[in-house]
Amino acid sequence: MSAPENITRTTVGIVGGGPAGLLLSHLLSQQGIENVVLEKRDHETIANTHRAGILEQQAVTMLTETGVDGRVLTEGDEHSGINLRFNGESHLLDFPDLVDATVTLYAQNEVFVDLAAARKRDGGDVRYECEVVDVLDLKTDTPKVRFHDLSAGGDPNQLQELLCDILVGADGSRSFCRRAVGEAEGHRDFKIEYPFAWFGILTGAPKSFPELIYANSPHGFALISQRSETVQRMYFQCDPGENVDDWSDDRIWSELQKRVDGPDGFQLKTGPIFDKTVLGFRSFVREPMRHGNMFLAGDAAHTVPPTGAKGLNLAFADIKVLFEAIESYVSTGSKDLLDAYSDTALKRVWKAQNFSYWMTSMLHTRQDANPFETKRALGELETVTSSRYGQQYLAESYTGWPHA
Amino acid sequence: MSAPENITRTTVGIVGGGPAGLLLSHLLSQQGIENVVLEKRDHETIANTHRAGILEQQAVTMLTETGVDGRVLTEGDEHSGINLRFNGESHLLDFPDLVDATVTLYAQNEVFVDLAAARKRDGGDVRYECEVVDVLDLKTDTPKVRFHDLSAGGDPNQLQELLCDILVGADGSRSFCRRAVGEAEGHRDFKIEYPFAWFGILTGAPKSFPELIYANSPHGFALISQRSETVQRMYFQCDPGENVDDWSDDRIWSELQKRVDGPDGFQLKTGPIFDKTVLGFRSFVREPMRHGNMFLAGDAAHTVPPTGAKGLNLAFADIKVLFEAIESYVSTGSKDLLDAYSDTALKRVWKAQNFSYWMTSMLHTRQDANPFETKRALGELETVTSSRYGQQYLAESYTGWPHA
Repeated sequence: MSAPENITRTTVGIVGGGPAGLLLSHLLSQQGIENVVLEKRDHETIANTHRAGILEQQAVTMLTETGVDGRVLTEGDEHSGINLRFNGESHLLDFPDLVDATVTLYAQNEVFVDLAAARKRDGGDVRYECEVVDVLDLKTDTPKVRFHDLSAGGDPNQLQELLCDILVGADGSRSFCRRAVGEAEGHRDFKIEYPFAWFGILTGAPKSFPELIYANSPHGFALISQRSETVQRMYFQCDPGENVDDWSDDRIWSELQKRVDGPDGFQLKTGPIFDKTVLGFRSFVREPMRHGNMFLAGDAAHTVPPTGAKGLNLAFADIKVLFEAIESYVSTGSKDLLDAYSDTALKRVWKAQNFSYWMTSMLHTRQDANPFETKRALGELETVTSSRYGQQYLAESYTGWPHA
Repeated sequence: MSAPENITRTTVGIVGGGPAGLLLSHLLSQQGIENVVLEKRDHETIANTHRAGILEQQAVTMLTETGVDGRVLTEGDEHSGINLRFNGESHLLDFPDLVDATVTLYAQNEVFVDLAAARKRDGGDVRYECEVVDVLDLKTDTPKVRFHDLSAGGDPNQLQELLCDILVGADGSRSFCRRAVGEAEGHRDFKIEYPFAWFGILTGAPKSFPELIYANSPHGFALISQRSETVQRMYFQCDPGENVDDWSDDRIWSELQKRVDGPDGFQLKTGPIFDKTVLGFRSFVREPMRHGNMFLAGDAAHTVPPTGAKGLNLAFADIKVLFEAIESYVSTGSKDLLDAYSDTALKRVWKAQNFSYWMTSMLHTRQDANPFETKRALGELETVTSSRYGQQYLAESYTGWPHA
């Protein structure tokens, strides 16, 4: 590879312009800390790739109180609970009553749109369509990123270089930064795969119920969620190899209804289905979340199954810890908080991994499961829903433990 | 088999004279309901087979408030919490503060001694050394038990018969009554085995700590328990095939200490070891807990791993539900509560199964475990201990949900 012809110097280099990278950039800029964001995709692609999102109250606060945008409050849909349904009966967990908190349904791509607009408004240096091809000198005081600018205004053949004091890999679950390090030098990847996936649909139908329904049924898990008054999002547990083309609208509705059937006669409100996807998922953690002066944050360091809705929230929690560590370093020269970053962040990561795994295993049915396990999960749902402490324990995890 | 020569008629026939059978007999007699208990072993054998026991507050109340004996209050050791130890740090769960409850350490064989004495005092018909060889006519209004009286005063060759309206199988985990029915006719057994066992010791040493310590360590689980001021009971997770003869006192102490080591320098107080046993365990449930007019209760219907200390407590909870159902039947002629017995009891059984499984899986290390699982369990312990709701959820389960 030839030497870079175009070199940029900054304090914090951020690989990845999703919500995690942009939020960090926003917070740093507000403190006058120079930073550059490199993002592979273009703005329109990210904005239009619809991804569901459930924000903890603290994540909402991070957007509103740091001056990103108040749109999450006007466009987002505040939810005051979830419904756990099993043995054909619904059990509402009332979050404000239980733990004095709520969550907000607000799509992750809308979070991106707000953050990208704020960065643009504040003159942030966010470079879309920049493809990172190398990260190097990570253990020195000047880690480097080499990349190509593939945007309309760039020269795709010119190799560019970003030099920084701190490099942040916030480049998602297939993180280039993480893979560049690999499991060498004391790093370790922890992961589990699940023998099932989610079949997700969008449908033009009214809400079937005001709150999310998480249903455990003999036919498998289903999640009845909402997007707006006229468009709903629903999922049902399926085989990871399922082909969406094999599923007619009728077959989908019949499968979903089966999983929420019960003596109360609950009926889903149906409509035309205009989006069908199979979402595989897994649990993953890279330890430590640091290599020299490169720090991993969000999906780049960990992936959770969607059952606990923790993905974006965990990324924001990482960013909060990392932002404070960088700010402390820049203002005092002390690396203490940076050195503590991985341990501090991982404490919450493993709590969230456990919560996501717990919700997943309690609500899903494994075809290879011992029948004892199926009964035990129902016993667990009974224990949680019949106890105020159990409800509070779950509600606190769902709405988010206090940030570090 | 020749016809029985000696026939006894009673209202409730109880197979099994352990704590569950004797408590039921005691409660029934107090209401003037005739009953006969048949127990295979002799009184001395049961009294001297030491079995640890941790009683929920409600189990203590059942002994004291129904006039069995107050000895559990004077001889039992009231405990106000447990200590969850992981990553080398101790986390005390203060039960009175968390859920306004305590538990009492009182050996199961002492519970038996008290119940047997009360039955004797009140003129109860408890026949030791009677071996049941058949249960029949279970679906009729007169179920029958055939047995041999092997006691000094009996004729071992004489086949005897007990005729009753209601037959109760409270004959422990290898229940003759349960096995006589098998999995036929809609019955189903649910079970899981565990790839580990407990190595238990008794030692002549002072208490290492005032409360029970449940330790998760990279070397496996350990439980530091107490029996008296001078004798302590401890366990450590081992291979189910472990031979106690391979373990010298020094080796045992070294293994136990390793599992509670931590930066706080916690040291076990050692002493001579005078009892060594390997306890295998499993989770088991028979559904339904009824066959015609035979009702199963306690270990005869379900076994839990010892980690949650739920075995005897669950048996007492069964007995409470069954006693009320029998009393209702005898006084009103209605079988409604008897018909509801299995469903009512199983609700608590599956909660206790889940709790026992949860404590077991959170605290033990499986050699075949994915390293993710080990980390996840630590994340769960962190979530529970760092949250008051989590502590309350665990404490409520440990000290016992309200009886039905």
